[in-house]
Amino acid sequence: MNVGKVVGTIVASQKDEKLTGTKLQIVRQLELDGSETGAFVVAIDAVGAGEGEVVLYASGSSARQTALTKDRPADAVIMAIVDSIEVDGKLLYQK
Amino acid sequence: MNVGKVVGTIVASQKDEKLTGTKLQIVRQLELDGSETGAFVVAIDAVGAGEGEVVLYASGSSARQTALTKDRPADAVIMAIVDSIEVDGKLLYQK
Amino acid sequence: MNVGKVVGTIVASQKDEKLTGTKLQIVRQLELDGSETGAFVVAIDAVGAGEGEVVLYASGSSARQTALTKDRPADAVIMAIVDSIEVDGKLLYQK
Amino acid sequence: MNVGKVVGTIVASQKDEKLTGTKLQIVRQLELDGSETGAFVVAIDAVGAGEGEVVLYASGSSARQTALTKDRPADAVIMAIVDSIEVDGKLLYQK
Amino acid sequence: MNVGKVVGTIVASQKDEKLTGTKLQIVRQLELDGSETGAFVVAIDAVGAGEGEVVLYASGSSARQTALTKDRPADAVIMAIVDSIEVDGKLLYQK
Repeated sequence: MNVGKVVGTIVASQKDEKLTGTKLQIVRQLELDGSETGAFVVAIDAVGAGEGEVVLYASGSSARQTALTKDRPADAVIMAIVDSIEVDGKLLYQK
Repeated sequence: MNVGKVVGTIVASQKDEKLTGTKLQIVRQLELDGSETGAFVVAIDAVGAGEGEVVLYASGSSARQTALTKDRPADAVIMAIVDSIEVDGKLLYQK
Repeated sequence: MNVGKVVGTIVASQKDEKLTGTKLQIVRQLELDGSETGAFVVAIDAVGAGEGEVVLYASGSSARQTALTKDRPADAVIMAIVDSIEVDGKLLYQK
Repeated sequence: MNVGKVVGTIVASQKDEKLTGTKLQIVRQLELDGSETGAFVVAIDAVGAGEGEVVLYASGSSARQTALTKDRPADAVIMAIVDSIEVDGKLLYQK
Repeated sequence: MNVGKVVGTIVASQKDEKLTGTKLQIVRQLELDGSETGAFVVAIDAVGAGEGEVVLYASGSSARQTALTKDRPADAVIMAIVDSIEVDGKLLYQK
């Protein structure tokens, strides 16, 4: 999984029928120090993350293993909201 | 999923029989500000996207989860046409 | 899928039994203008592509969706021979 | 698989129900000489690795092949703790 | 698939039970001219490759399609030993 921050949303009324009812969030990938890597992904939100929240997202077939994303043509899912990140004994992030 | 723009098509009469009847679109990957990343992918179009349209595409096994792409040897699918992209409260794109 | 050019072959007599009878082609990845990206992949040929031909290849689990590659330990397959590539209304390649 | 070092943990109380009971470790990817590549991944720990330990991690659908990660929306798993790394006849790492 | 050279081994006594009995080889990725790309992968050896041998390896779910790697948490497998590489009509490598 990667760490990212929810920064926005994409609206798409014309989409594959298997995507009906999903929320498409834009997630910027983060380094462990909270800076942005420059990469982003569009992910289905399985945990109700709000804009600005630091999240974990899974990619590939693993993105289809939540109840919400099962059998959907989606290759990224937000599957957790991060409470804290601790590296080398230091607290780098706390919600 | 990634954001891209449909810029063209590939015609291939000699192909695996499981690809019969599919339309192969060329999609340039976009940044959130609409600039091109330089990368492109050839994707099966599951939503009837026209040239110049901004779309979402899914990669890997997830690309086979639409009714059109099921069991096909295709690793990318256009699964949505983008209406709008909103980042940090600003509307970056509207169809 | 990506666009590539068949540039050679790999012979491997000692291989997993599930690879018996497959032809291993070397494919250099191409940009849309026909220049080489510098990347290459070794792919099973499902369409009888000859050396020098411009092809489409699929990667990952999608590479196992042809009759020839089903259940084989192969992560790339040539699944189409390109007739033409049209981008922004211009014909960039014709066989 | 890749070689990495466990450097920290992520706590996430609000997560997909399929992630309940898993430990999320932060793994920095290593070169063979033990230096860091700069990349990191968040992985489920299937072997009880402690902070500072050198481990192997698998990515993608293969990350779901342990008893612990089966059917979970996780794309990386720590599946081994490294005892030693030998390259070109030299012992580069020993636990 | 990619081309690589077996350069060493990793010993890991503490590992997921599904990895029991597998040999973990370190494979440096090669360019077609035999130079190293700088990337490496740890792969399960399905063909008995020895150190120094030029091999093909498959990645992702395709790595689990050999009898040896079926259902294992492994994302790379050595599935062939290369006899020869021919590019543009020239023999670039012969065992």
